Formats: sequence, structure tokens, C-alpha cells
Amino acid sequence: MPLPQEFHDIAKRVNNWGRWGADDEIGTLNLITRRVVRDAAACVRSGRRVPLALPLRQDGVQTGAIPGRVNPLHTMTAVNQEIFGPGTVAISDDVVTMGLQAATHWDGLTHVSHSGRLYNNRPADSITAHGGATRLGIEKATPIASRGLLLDVARAHGTDRLPGGHVVTPEDLDTAEELAGARVRAGDVVLVRTGQMRHYLAGDRQSYAFPSPGLSLRTPEWFHARDVAAVANDTLTFEIFPPEIRNLWLPVHALDLVEMGMLQGQNWNLEELSEVCAAERRWTFFLSAMAEPFVGGSGTPVAPVAIL
Amino acid sequence: MPLPQEFHDIAKRVNNWGRWGADDEIGTLNLITRRVVRDAAACVRSGRRVPLALPLRQDGVQTGAIPGRVNPLHTMTAVNQEIFGPGTVAISDDVVTMGLQAATHWDGLTHVSHSGRLYNNRPADSITAHGGATRLGIEKATPIASRGLLLDVARAHGTDRLPGGHVVTPEDLDTAEELAGARVRAGDVVLVRTGQMRHYLAGDRQSYAFPSPGLSLRTPEWFHARDVAAVANDTLTFEIFPPEIRNLWLPVHALDLVEMGMLQGQNWNLEELSEVCAAERRWTFFLSAMAEPFVGGSGTPVAPVAIL
Amino acid sequence: MPLPQEFHDIAKRVNNWGRWGADDEIGTLNLITRRVVRDAAACVRSGRRVPLALPLRQDGVQTGAIPGRVNPLHTMTAVNQEIFGPGTVAISDDVVTMGLQAATHWDGLTHVSHSGRLYNNRPADSITAHGGATRLGIEKATPIASRGLLLDVARAHGTDRLPGGHVVTPEDLDTAEELAGARVRAGDVVLVRTGQMRHYLAGDRQSYAFPSPGLSLRTPEWFHARDVAAVANDTLTFEIFPPEIRNLWLPVHALDLVEMGMLQGQNWNLEELSEVCAAERRWTFFLSAMAEPFVGGSGTPVAPVAIL
Amino acid sequence: MPLPQEFHDIAKRVNNWGRWGADDEIGTLNLITRRVVRDAAACVRSGRRVPLALPLRQDGVQTGAIPGRVNPLHTMTAVNQEIFGPGTVAISDDVVTMGLQAATHWDGLTHVSHSGRLYNNRPADSITAHGGATRLGIEKATPIASRGLLLDVARAHGTDRLPGGHVVTPEDLDTAEELAGARVRAGDVVLVRTGQMRHYLAGDRQSYAFPSPGLSLRTPEWFHARDVAAVANDTLTFEIFPPEIRNLWLPVHALDLVEMGMLQGQNWNLEELSEVCAAERRWTFFLSAMAEPFVGGSGTPVAPVAIL
Repeated sequence: MPLPQEFHDIAKRVNNWGRWGADDEIGTLNLITRRVVRDAAACVRSGRRVPLALPLRQDGVQTGAIPGRVNPLHTMTAVNQEIFGPGTVAISDDVVTMGLQAATHWDGLTHVSHSGRLYNNRPADSITAHGGATRLGIEKATPIASRGLLLDVARAHGTDRLPGGHVVTPEDLDTAEELAGARVRAGDVVLVRTGQMRHYLAGDRQSYAFPSPGLSLRTPEWFHARDVAAVANDTLTFEIFPPEIRNLWLPVHALDLVEMGMLQGQNWNLEELSEVCAAERRWTFFLSAMAEPFVGGSGTPVAPVAIL
Repeated sequence: MPLPQEFHDIAKRVNNWGRWGADDEIGTLNLITRRVVRDAAACVRSGRRVPLALPLRQDGVQTGAIPGRVNPLHTMTAVNQEIFGPGTVAISDDVVTMGLQAATHWDGLTHVSHSGRLYNNRPADSITAHGGATRLGIEKATPIASRGLLLDVARAHGTDRLPGGHVVTPEDLDTAEELAGARVRAGDVVLVRTGQMRHYLAGDRQSYAFPSPGLSLRTPEWFHARDVAAVANDTLTFEIFPPEIRNLWLPVHALDLVEMGMLQGQNWNLEELSEVCAAERRWTFFLSAMAEPFVGGSGTPVAPVAIL
Repeated sequence: MPLPQEFHDIAKRVNNWGRWGADDEIGTLNLITRRVVRDAAACVRSGRRVPLALPLRQDGVQTGAIPGRVNPLHTMTAVNQEIFGPGTVAISDDVVTMGLQAATHWDGLTHVSHSGRLYNNRPADSITAHGGATRLGIEKATPIASRGLLLDVARAHGTDRLPGGHVVTPEDLDTAEELAGARVRAGDVVLVRTGQMRHYLAGDRQSYAFPSPGLSLRTPEWFHARDVAAVANDTLTFEIFPPEIRNLWLPVHALDLVEMGMLQGQNWNLEELSEVCAAERRWTFFLSAMAEPFVGGSGTPVAPVAIL
Repeated sequence: MPLPQEFHDIAKRVNNWGRWGADDEIGTLNLITRRVVRDAAACVRSGRRVPLALPLRQDGVQTGAIPGRVNPLHTMTAVNQEIFGPGTVAISDDVVTMGLQAATHWDGLTHVSHSGRLYNNRPADSITAHGGATRLGIEKATPIASRGLLLDVARAHGTDRLPGGHVVTPEDLDTAEELAGARVRAGDVVLVRTGQMRHYLAGDRQSYAFPSPGLSLRTPEWFHARDVAAVANDTLTFEIFPPEIRNLWLPVHALDLVEMGMLQGQNWNLEELSEVCAAERRWTFFLSAMAEPFVGGSGTPVAPVAIL
């Protein structure tokens, strides 16, 4: 089933192909300029650091519904091993197997393709089984350190958690921006809070996974108009799921990643940040959210921190 | 063979057990106060970001000499898979298996023990095969964002790379501090450059591994006196290897991790940073180097970035 | 809570420690003598081969309830990769991550310990985090090729599948032996069918897992009296689960593995074999069920085949 | 560079496409008929079992030269864990990550393709990144239990180990057959010994890997003429490597797997078997060498055993 005209119309309006040159592999991360970084650093006032990653553990957010996206399996290869002889300094080492999109993560630009194409008109088949993303891999991403802005949609709606079917619309973003008392600027990393993470934190993985509130296919235009560098939220699917338009699956992924070349973050824990921002009456901060440079990676676990 | 008296003498002088309470699990990360973070942010002037992680790939720094510390094995679980039917948005996903200490990483506080003890007098057997570090795990680490200071020992010696057997002494650190034109302060994350990484970058993993220049067992006192939050360098072994004192293996690990409760970073790529600092005549910067919160982890890959 | 006297009484009666010498590491596999193997080969009459392993796939029998016992994750490291240049012979390669006890498997002798001891009075702490089983590991097992005998308890009860709570007693085994028209002999590998596998084959992993029919803690004496070499069945837990005696968990594992030194097989698919044996009116056959020699392994996946 | 005419000429002569029907997915395993199995069982005389697998360990035969074909990494997920409370039966569990072609293994029919085709004219692109071999996967293999025949080429040459560059020719196979005093028959699994394994057993992985003696591209016709079910040997590359004809890489793989549909075994340890056969003056035996049923697998570890 081909993608509908409505999708293609939006795609045309948010497309960034060629904007930063034919060889560009980082998309909207280009918008994090030195000036943006300097201004972001100036957001640090109290020095308070708020971590946004979920603990990495086998009891993570994955339910097994997505084959291969396995929760972290952490095992020890040594426990207090006295490799140099009895009584010497002893060593403990460990190893992990995990899906790169399993926990708190960034989707890389190659995480989805449509119509045989990736961002910047790269062919989808530049992704191979043995090398992964030979172009646009997550290792190409420049360091993600910029101004962060929390759009606390749940709080703006006066609730702890938006209901499962709630579509986060551009209007919702406007309202949350108003609550924040700050305008989204070029180069910002925008964090959108739905409160859906409360399901997982309460031990209910199934309700966390589905049905999920999430971003509307109308939001990419909103982000594009503001020249946002990246967007992350506190859900498994990022966008509303099941989708707004019957049989149009993952349109937001396709618009953000393929058309705009904009990284998406998922499974970010924004609960503490929501409290801190409300308490400090301040919704902007310095955000550090470095990609691990997996060569050919379609994504990466990330341990983001907001510094207020 | 028991640890020699010399070791125990130093151990007593740098010991931090109980300093932040009997329940403390983060050691010198306590020194990164809100004031330190604010001052660190004030170091950002040009907004230039310098990444310090090596690419994560199977052809990484591990040679196989340390069993179980495997280089990253990255494979695809989906390549442009149209899971919702032909013509729909297609998905690419991936999975990784890797040693937590295999690439650019932080050693966690449980990475070594001696005399049956971990930092803060925790018993070594609090590390278990199924749970890893039940106390002091890397997931306990607070966000590592602080002032960074590069002690470019190689450059201070007028060389690109210190020779394999070079012991980095407190005097070397003094000289590098002089070059930096800045004093190490409480809460700083200190990066010590030997240039050893040039071996690996030139494709020579064996020479990179061994023999390696590295920190002297006299340096923990230097770092302790200055209340440093953490130290990282550009070698596989961190400390001089083979060791200064015959049969005294990994004394610096034992002093830093067990006695002081101070994280160590290894396999950091400081080459570009060395050039940038020299060009900007400035050796201090904002450093972001977040641990991935592996529950029970003895360490963590890290993607550090220096922001000048 | 200490193991009850009843357990220790049975333990004494089935104990094989020292029977094959103080250094023995294979237990009842010693009972597979050359004569036993020759007699086993003589069981081959029709030449029909019946495989007994479940397919190895991510959608395997594990539900996630046992942390770390992960279903097989199979990924490609190369797909038609022309490593010698365009137009040359192309290569496909793959890699797997899996729990050794996750699918159709043998429990090794170190899979359980009790009272700090393993089979043949080995200390439990001879199992280490870095080396696994330094004694009694699955790589020590001699090739498991012997006479197989199917005790089709479900069929003897006139049912396709025993109910979840059914305790398989010595009397059940007697009845099934009668159905088989053959006596269990020294060195036999006995397969006990409950029909529980039908749940999994019908797509219901939860019902397969729990509650499960399984062997009574009275059966080890039955197997010991007959000098059986090994026993396998078609359940996840092998023994009745939840257990017969409140708070006495896994007594059959402890008796079989620790006291007798007898391997146990689990998750064997005995459905086709049940049909074939009934059709051929013959319940004995040549059985090949080789352990993969994982050094230090507590178990091994196995691909058993019955040859009639 | 296209495959040369010489290759295509041989290919035509050994091709089995369509021989067992258009839907066949097991190739020459069809030749293991019930009669063959019965005759194989009749080879058991002394009851002596000789295992042919190398131990599975991280220090395996792989040198790292083939990316992704990783030696087994075995770690514990539990060591004597008392999951039901103190004093209860304690559990040890383990997990492995390994290349399916890393150790003693069978190449599956999809391990190589040429000219875009797999065995029986299946398209090469029926292998996908997420599912592996959707046709012809190793899980389709019927149980490999048949008559085994050792062609001890090294012994026939009066040497312990053929030199690195030795091409094993049809004439070599004839001579070894003469030594064996038995003719290869339809359905046999033929084991070809070069003695190359002695390098690895002596601790020299590099010499084991390369240069290697191995089968000539003239041998597939020899095996085809005799309707052999499968062939295995004691080398890493199976065929002579570097190849006989410049720039014609892996022709034997392409002929055996793609044209004939015949499984190949590699890294089999035939040293003990060589001694036993010579001592018993008998080179035929019952061979059990079951594939583990990895769904979509291009190969499988195997623990073969010869029973004399």
C-alpha cells in the first residue's frame, strides 16, 4: 500500500535534502552552531543536574513484541578475579548484549526509510547486513550538547499522564510553550512530556507500550518551522500509536528522520525534570545527550542530562 | 603475595572511606557540586565541541589478550524491513554485544577490589555473578558534567607521544599544569595525555596495548591533594604497565577506585583536544562524560565531549 | 530454610559420590559402556530418524520469567557479501546469543548445588564467574549415544496431555514401562512424556511454563535402582512445579544432578516420537543426544534424535 | 570479476537442482535413506565413541581475521544463586554469544551464493537481515546420522600433517580410500583428514588458519559421482587456500553448497579418530552429527561423534 498524498504533501514542506550540501550526514544537528552551544551553556544557573535515562537492566521497557529489540543482558566475565595471583588486586569485568533502540535512546537517521530512500536522498540499500549504515550512521552525529526546552504537555493539560490515545498536536505544543514561558529557538533540543513513562515506572510495561499517546503527523511541520535540532519524548513509539490515519504507519518517523534529517529520542524519563522545571519556574536548560559512536548504527543508547 | 607496606602507606593517605557517609556509593563524584557545575559552564567561550570517544567497532582497541573484554560486535536485526506491509515505512534495527571496559570507558568503583574490600569498606563479595555490583554499581554515578582540565604531558615534554615505558609522575603533572596555565581545582575531571593513542590511530593495536606509558603509583596522592572528581587518559592500562614495583600489579587502580572512590577513564582519544587547546591557548573546558546506567555495572562505555 | 529430613533421607539412598572414583566428573554417563552402545545400535531396525529438538528462535519457550535465560537471538553478520569483489562467490554468516538452558537442552552437573556441594563432593564455589564450572563442566560429558526408552506417561493415562498439576510418580513410570513392553536397563536414556509440550506447540507459552506436570521427588530412587544414564522430558521445569512439598524447591534437580550425578533433559519435543512408537509398537531406539562442549558450561543446547 | 568458464563447466556436471523436486531444501541429505541408516548402525562393533568437536571456548580457532565470526563468549547469569531463599537448592545458569561458523560446524546451504543464486535455484535475496535464510535454513536439515568414512589423506601420505599448500586432489582421495579398504557409498558422510588441526592443538592459531591445505575444486565431481551426503574436514577453510586458480575464490564452497546442495563441515578434530581407525584397522563407523535447528541459520555448531 503506497503512502498517501497527504504524507507526501507534508514531506515536501519539511524536506531538508541538500540544505547542508549533498554530502551531509547529520541533518538538523547542523543547527547546533557554536553560538547555540554558548547560549546553551548560559542557561546553567543553579548547576542542578537531572539525569533522563532509565536504568539499563533486563527488566527494561521492551516486552518482546518487537523481535530483536532485546533488553540489556548484563553478565560478568570476571568477579574479583585475582589474575596476577592470590592476594593481588582483583578484577571485575562485564559484558552486555542489547538492542540499540531498546532503552533510552536516539533513533539514528537510518532507523527508517521510505520509498527506498534515506535522508538526503541516500539509497536505503546503503544499509547492509554486515556494515549497517554505511552512510548516515550514528557515529557521524556531532556531539549533542545544546539548549534543551521541556514542553510539558501533560502538565499543561493539568494531568500527570495523558491518556493512551492522546494525539499531541501542534496546538498542544503551543500551549506547553506558553507554560514554559519561552520560545523554541533554532538549534534547540525539544523534550515533549506526555507522562506515559509513569506506567513503566509503576511496573506496568504493557500499558506503557500500548496504546500510547504520541506526536501527531502534523508536528514535524511545527518543529521544522522552528528549526529544532532534535526532539525526544517519554514514550516507546514517539508518535501516536496506533496511528492517526488508518494504515499510515510511522509517518512521523519518516518525516523526522528521512525528510528533515532530525534525530528522535524515545523512552526518556522526564518525570523528575518535570518537577524540577515546575519548581524552578524554568523550562530551559543545558542539555547533554551524546550518541555512542556505534559505527553503522541505526541508533544509540543515550544517558541524557539536563543542567539547570 | 600480599600487597607491600609501601602500598598500604599510600592507601592510608588517600583513603576517603566514610568521608561522605557510611552509605556513600559515588566517592569523589560528590566533589562535583552545583557551584562546580556552574563554574564549569562558565568555561564555555567559543562553543567548540571536541568529541573524545573512539568509534565503537569490532576492530577496536582490544587485542584478545584480556578474555571476555570483547570489542563491540554490531549486527542488524532488521534492514529496511517493511513490517507493516509492502510500500510502508521500512525499519532498520540493530543490536550490540560488547565489554563494558572494551572501548572508551569509565572504570566503575567495583572494577577492582583488594584485601576483600571495595570503596567505602564494602565487601568485595557484594559483587555477584547474577547481579553484578549490588552496591557501588555504575548506575549509581551522578551525571559527570564538570570542569575538564587537560594535562598534556606529552606536549609538555615536547613530544607527540611518550615512550612505552614512561612513568607519568607528579612532577610530570606539575609541568603539564604549568603548560596549561591553570591550577587543578576541587571537582575537576583531569585528562592526562600521553600520546599513546597515536599507536592505535595508526593501526597498531599491539604497540598501543603494551608496553604503555601511564600514571605512577605516586599520582593518586597528587589527585587526592587537589580533590579531583575523576581522571581519564589515553591508554589501555591507565597506569604504567608493566608496573613500577615488581609484582605490585594495578596499584593505581586499587588506590583510585578502592581507597579514594575515584572513577578512572581509559582509551580516551585526546589527540584533537590537544591540538585545539594548544591553538586556543586554553586547557580548561566544560566536560560532559555521562555513564550509561548499567545496573550492577563495573564500568561503562562513555562518549565524552569537551566544550571550549 | 534448611532442606527437610525427607530430602536428606532420599539423598542418602541415591548418592553416587565416589562410585566411579574421587575424580569422576561425568556421573551416570559412566553407565554407557561399550556393550550398552553396541546393544543400542542393535535397536535400529527401520532406520527411521525422529528429531526431538525445538527450533531455535527468538520466539522460543522462555517467557522472560527467568532473568538471563534468554531465547536465541540470531543475527546475520554478512548477507551475500562479496568479500573478494563484485561477481565473486558471496558469503552469509551469522551469530547467536542464547541461554544454554533456554531451549531443548541438557542440564549439566553444575546446574544446581545444595548445601554448598556439587556432585562427587565438589565444592559449589568451584563454579566461578569468569570460568564457569571449573570442575564437572558440560565439556567433560562423554558422547551421549545409548539406548533410548520412551515412557509415554500421557499415553499410558489415555490422554494427550497430563493436566498441569499432575505429579509423575514411580507408579506412573511402572505403568508406562508396561505400555512400552520393555524394561529399563542400566545405561538407558529414559524419555518421559507428559504431553505438556502441546501447549507450546499450540502457541501458548504461558500455559507451557506453569503450572506444569513433572517428576515426583520419589522418582530419583526409581531411576537410581535401574541405573539409568540420563532422563529427559517435555516440560520447562522437569519436575512437578510448584513442588510437592511446600518450600522444598527443585528437590529432583538436587537429587538427580548433585546426588546421583545424572544429567536431566528439558524442553524435548516428544510428540512425533510418541506417534511413531505407538505406530511401530516399539518404545526403544538408538538415541543420539550430544552435548555441545561449552567449556565450563552448566548445560548445553542439544539436538537429540531417536533412530528406530 | 565473473566466475571463469572452468568453474561453470564443473558446476554443470555436479548440479543437483531439481533432482529432489523443485521445493527441496536439504540437497544431498536426501541420500541418507532408511536403508543407509540401518547399514550405518550395523557398523557399530566395538561400541567405542570418538568425539570430533573442539571445545567451545573464547580461545577458539578464530583469529579475528573474519569480522563477526566470533569465538564463543560464555558467561554466567547465575552462580549458585539461591533464588528461593537462603539454604535452598542453588542455581547456576549461563549464556553464550558465538558465530555459528566459528568452531566445529556445518556450513548450511545458504552459507554461500553465486550469480545471485542458492541451491535449487533459490534467489540469493531470500536471505534477509532480519530472518536469515527464509529458505534452505539449517533448521530444515534432517538428522545427520549415517555411515561415516575417514579418508586419512595425511596418513596415506605417510605424514602427520600435510604442508600448508597441499591441494587435496581426487587422486589423494583414491589413495586414502585404498588405505581405508572400503569404498565410499551413496549416503556416506566422508571425513577428510589433512592433519592441519595439529597446528591449533599445539596452540598455533595463525598457522592453523593460513596457509591451509584443503580440497581441490576437482573434488566436488569425485564426491558427486559417489553420491556422498556430506563432507567434513579438519581445516578452517575446507578448500585449499589461497585458491588453485588466481582470483577464483571459494569455488569448492560454491560447487558443494550451491550446485550440489551438499553440507560441508569444518574445524573437525580428526586426530583421535585417525589413531583409533588405524589401531582398529577400520575406517568406517556410525556417525552422528546433528545440526542445531537455528531458524534461518547459515550454519550450525555441531558435536559430531564417530561410533566404531
